[in-house]
Amino acid sequence: MSSDTAIARADAFLQELRRRTLDEPGVTRASYGEGEQIAHDMMRVWARELDLAVTTDYVGNQYMTLPGRDRSLPSLMMGSHMDSVPHGGNYDGAAGVVAGMTALQRMRELGVTPRMDVIVMAIRAEEMSWFPAPYIGSRAAFGLLPAGTLDSLVRFDSGRTLGEHMKEAGHDPDAIRAGRRHLDAARIGHYLEVHIEQGPHLVKLRKRCAVVTGIRGNQRYKHCRVTGEYGHAGAVPRLDRKDALLAAVDFVSGLEAMWKRREAAGEDLVCTVGQFYTDAAVHTITKIPGDVRFTMDYRSYDEAVLTACHRELSEHAKRIGEARGVTIDLGEYTHAEAAVMDPKLIALAKRTAHRLGIDAPEMASGAGHDCAVFANQGVPCAMIFIRNDHSSHNPKESKDIDDFAEACRLLHGMLDELVA
Amino acid sequence: MSSDTAIARADAFLQELRRRTLDEPGVTRASYGEGEQIAHDMMRVWARELDLAVTTDYVGNQYMTLPGRDRSLPSLMMGSHMDSVPHGGNYDGAAGVVAGMTALQRMRELGVTPRMDVIVMAIRAEEMSWFPAPYIGSRAAFGLLPAGTLDSLVRFDSGRTLGEHMKEAGHDPDAIRAGRRHLDAARIGHYLEVHIEQGPHLVKLRKRCAVVTGIRGNQRYKHCRVTGEYGHAGAVPRLDRKDALLAAVDFVSGLEAMWKRREAAGEDLVCTVGQFYTDAAVHTITKIPGDVRFTMDYRSYDEAVLTACHRELSEHAKRIGEARGVTIDLGEYTHAEAAVMDPKLIALAKRTAHRLGIDAPEMASGAGHDCAVFANQGVPCAMIFIRNDHSSHNPKESKDIDDFAEACRLLHGMLDELVA
Repeated sequence: MSSDTAIARADAFLQELRRRTLDEPGVTRASYGEGEQIAHDMMRVWARELDLAVTTDYVGNQYMTLPGRDRSLPSLMMGSHMDSVPHGGNYDGAAGVVAGMTALQRMRELGVTPRMDVIVMAIRAEEMSWFPAPYIGSRAAFGLLPAGTLDSLVRFDSGRTLGEHMKEAGHDPDAIRAGRRHLDAARIGHYLEVHIEQGPHLVKLRKRCAVVTGIRGNQRYKHCRVTGEYGHAGAVPRLDRKDALLAAVDFVSGLEAMWKRREAAGEDLVCTVGQFYTDAAVHTITKIPGDVRFTMDYRSYDEAVLTACHRELSEHAKRIGEARGVTIDLGEYTHAEAAVMDPKLIALAKRTAHRLGIDAPEMASGAGHDCAVFANQGVPCAMIFIRNDHSSHNPKESKDIDDFAEACRLLHGMLDELVA
Repeated sequence: MSSDTAIARADAFLQELRRRTLDEPGVTRASYGEGEQIAHDMMRVWARELDLAVTTDYVGNQYMTLPGRDRSLPSLMMGSHMDSVPHGGNYDGAAGVVAGMTALQRMRELGVTPRMDVIVMAIRAEEMSWFPAPYIGSRAAFGLLPAGTLDSLVRFDSGRTLGEHMKEAGHDPDAIRAGRRHLDAARIGHYLEVHIEQGPHLVKLRKRCAVVTGIRGNQRYKHCRVTGEYGHAGAVPRLDRKDALLAAVDFVSGLEAMWKRREAAGEDLVCTVGQFYTDAAVHTITKIPGDVRFTMDYRSYDEAVLTACHRELSEHAKRIGEARGVTIDLGEYTHAEAAVMDPKLIALAKRTAHRLGIDAPEMASGAGHDCAVFANQGVPCAMIFIRNDHSSHNPKESKDIDDFAEACRLLHGMLDELVA
């Protein structure tokens, strides 16, 4: 039952990957960029060492398959993404693909042939930092990526579209335009994803890993804008002002008040205004601001909460705009659906942890994961979180290989039942 | 009593000045820059047409003197500044110097020799947009500019110090370092300043000009900073966040609440947060902001209100910082004293307006003016405001020459009594 050599291979892989995609502080593996491709290429080498079948789909997701005894059965899939945010953490995403590979290596070493095909999927373009849309790779695999996004989504650093980037990297975005898909949910029995936790929960609990119960959905507003009127800081009386900054502050105060109220009422919700700025080209210390832009991201396990928040915030914006003589435009937004993990797989994970003496509490995921796409396609899903000392979008991410190994041990134990 | 030719000369001057310092939208006359120097040079030409004595002081303020019958008497001074904000209004500042010149031209035309010297002062560097300190030119004339500011104040566009700019323009900053001064308040009988209103009050009242009762003082904080902790937008629970943006929003909400409360209690106060921004180098839509910077400017006719506000806001910052686990540092600030206009001169202005059939209401100035420096040195002061359709720091400033002429008529009428 040992998997020491697989863990050692994983550790070597992650160290090499870090070294080859280093971009201090942290690593940079852009969606459809050089760092992501390095990760996929390294993964292909490992797959060949294990004599796995390696294929890619139209958009460059890579599948490493250990064939099962009965290839007509729905497959068991594992995976995660290989891209990172700019200057991000080395384990974010990659650890999940690597964990899947340790399971395949262990089966090879034990001489186990699984009942069904077991497939590790290295997913493209999960991080929204590059293209402003969620789950590009996994949605494209299921034929869920709207064809229009190939032309409308632009990578922030290159200025080129998603379709152009896919084509340059040798993939086939026209297949997406033609409505084709690579994965069929009915042909997938289970999807398991290992991922580092992107918050401080496990660090606080002093636990190495956790069993995930659900994934927050989110709404993201990238282009909120308050338009008022510039004016002299000393000479315009309060009631004659159309101060865009005070209106924006009022709006964000209301967002926080809504958050506290809904949280007190037992609703799940987190809200973040990540960017907020007056216009650097014209703002001065002695000018009433006439223009403020900001972003807004809020998340919940409960789709109904997301819908209610949008309605409430829209009314809030309208009310403040009218009261203050300004316009608050929340702009377009993206939506990523919330997802629940499969109760039977959660029970299996808990049972396996107990059997192996692993103390893995249950927790929900605040961050989004490709797993949500599989779950919302009806695939029974499970996720295992690994403790992470720093936020995963933080280059200070540090992860004990022992924590990673513990998560792998839990994953391997679950597979022992699922593929037998 | 006609001053038609003087007004025509003024109109031509202002049109030429606009043309020569045009920087669409608006005009640009940087403190110790090219545009300001053009204005001073043009003023010197006009002074020579009128055979006035022209002198400059250590820092380049320019004095145009019509000698009086008794040169031992304290002089009567008029003036304003010749610099502008970037892309600012053509009349802001310049109109006051030009108005003073119309008074001298009219005396020349009428063959009047005033009792005392009458001096028009073209003042340097009033606009804080260039160097972050108030009233540089007028304070330097009175020996009130701290020598240290010559090295510490840096012009935002050139990166060079105030002292360097003065020296390059041919002036003598070392005289300021040596503690010398050019003006002696005891030798100035009155100071009169015409200036456009920098708010909408006269436009609303449909009046051409006003008699100013006082000038707001101000406190300006250019480097407020909130330091929290960056984190993942989805994964960190509310109470674990050290969200710099929500803390900064809380602070500004409190500033507005304080403003409303003090205003309701009858205190004079206006507050402006002109710049406010998350860090563009690292902020993203999915990151809890760890760093926010903003500016703060508040003004009152009452020095005690300014002092009380600083105390209240400092406590407010401390309290929010502690409650939210962040640091709110208000940083260094500058202070410009509030000033009251001379009651006898206000009475003279009202009486003169009545005599000439000019409907000039009383009002206070929300913006700061060089006049405040003279008033706080004990010089009896008066100001006349001219209606202005747009805020003066706004390139859309438009001013009817008829409004300007009406203000001049009031000024000339006051002088008829003061210099007789």
